[in-house]
Amino acid sequence: MEEMKQVLHAIQDEYPDDFAWCYGCGRLNTEGDHFRTGWDGNRTVTFYKPEEKYTSIPGFVYGGAIASLVDCHGTGSCSLALHRKNGFEPGDGETPPRFVTASLHVDYLKPTPQEALLKAVGTVEEIHPKKWKVTVEVYADDTLCATGEVIGAVMPAIFGQQ
Amino acid sequence: MEEMKQVLHAIQDEYPDDFAWCYGCGRLNTEGDHFRTGWDGNRTVTFYKPEEKYTSIPGFVYGGAIASLVDCHGTGSCSLALHRKNGFEPGDGETPPRFVTASLHVDYLKPTPQEALLKAVGTVEEIHPKKWKVTVEVYADDTLCATGEVIGAVMPAIFGQQ
Repeated sequence: MEEMKQVLHAIQDEYPDDFAWCYGCGRLNTEGDHFRTGWDGNRTVTFYKPEEKYTSIPGFVYGGAIASLVDCHGTGSCSLALHRKNGFEPGDGETPPRFVTASLHVDYLKPTPQEALLKAVGTVEEIHPKKWKVTVEVYADDTLCATGEVIGAVMPAIFGQQ
Repeated sequence: MEEMKQVLHAIQDEYPDDFAWCYGCGRLNTEGDHFRTGWDGNRTVTFYKPEEKYTSIPGFVYGGAIASLVDCHGTGSCSLALHRKNGFEPGDGETPPRFVTASLHVDYLKPTPQEALLKAVGTVEEIHPKKWKVTVEVYADDTLCATGEVIGAVMPAIFGQQ
């Protein structure tokens, strides 16, 4: 099977406009990172080429950018999974559920080289009808540089969505 | 005692130029956040007013920006603590040790309002001569919005520092 190099149908493409301003993954935030998360079989993927400004030590990617990738990849993965559970896929034109991050964890295993294409791979598990857990691996080309875990919760009413 | 509103002597002011390019806390990264971390008694503090672009849902701060704050506040706090253990304070003109993040954890307790001044407060503990743990609380004005934990490790040689 050919290795996937980009996400065709991203869940973030389907968020309503009012919820598409996230610095990490909002398609309407012109200054943001525009993470796009989709299915690759039963796993979720986000590809990301960090801009040069996101440096930690020159030559290596800023840990906060990796944390942001894990964060938005996590909430996007939760949204993909609940949307699929409800019978839908991105591209269907159905509005997906929107999640917020309850907790974020990242273990930095190796310095992440700045010239590499990053790929976050997620495994999603329902732990409660409104709470999902995503286990994340972040690769720089083929090297596993970080692992993470996101607990996502269905967006509460305080954020304006009902 | 009067409440502290800014950091006078930040540890990041003392990093060598080669290690002052971090997107989060590097004073030489013109596009970055310029987090500055200092002592407030035996606790560490970083103040931060996020730019408007760092939105999640309009009105609320992007979780990745909060993770970045916790991350750099954590490594800065480790550096402050080991520097103090070695007998130095920022402002002394001594080069402090530089840390990298081994792991980062953030629990998002409440949506963080975008207009507030954020304050990260850290408690630092040595868990190994080269590894320190920082417990972090993030306040928006007086409201505790997130808690976190950073494990920082003395920067390994692979990053170019000996």
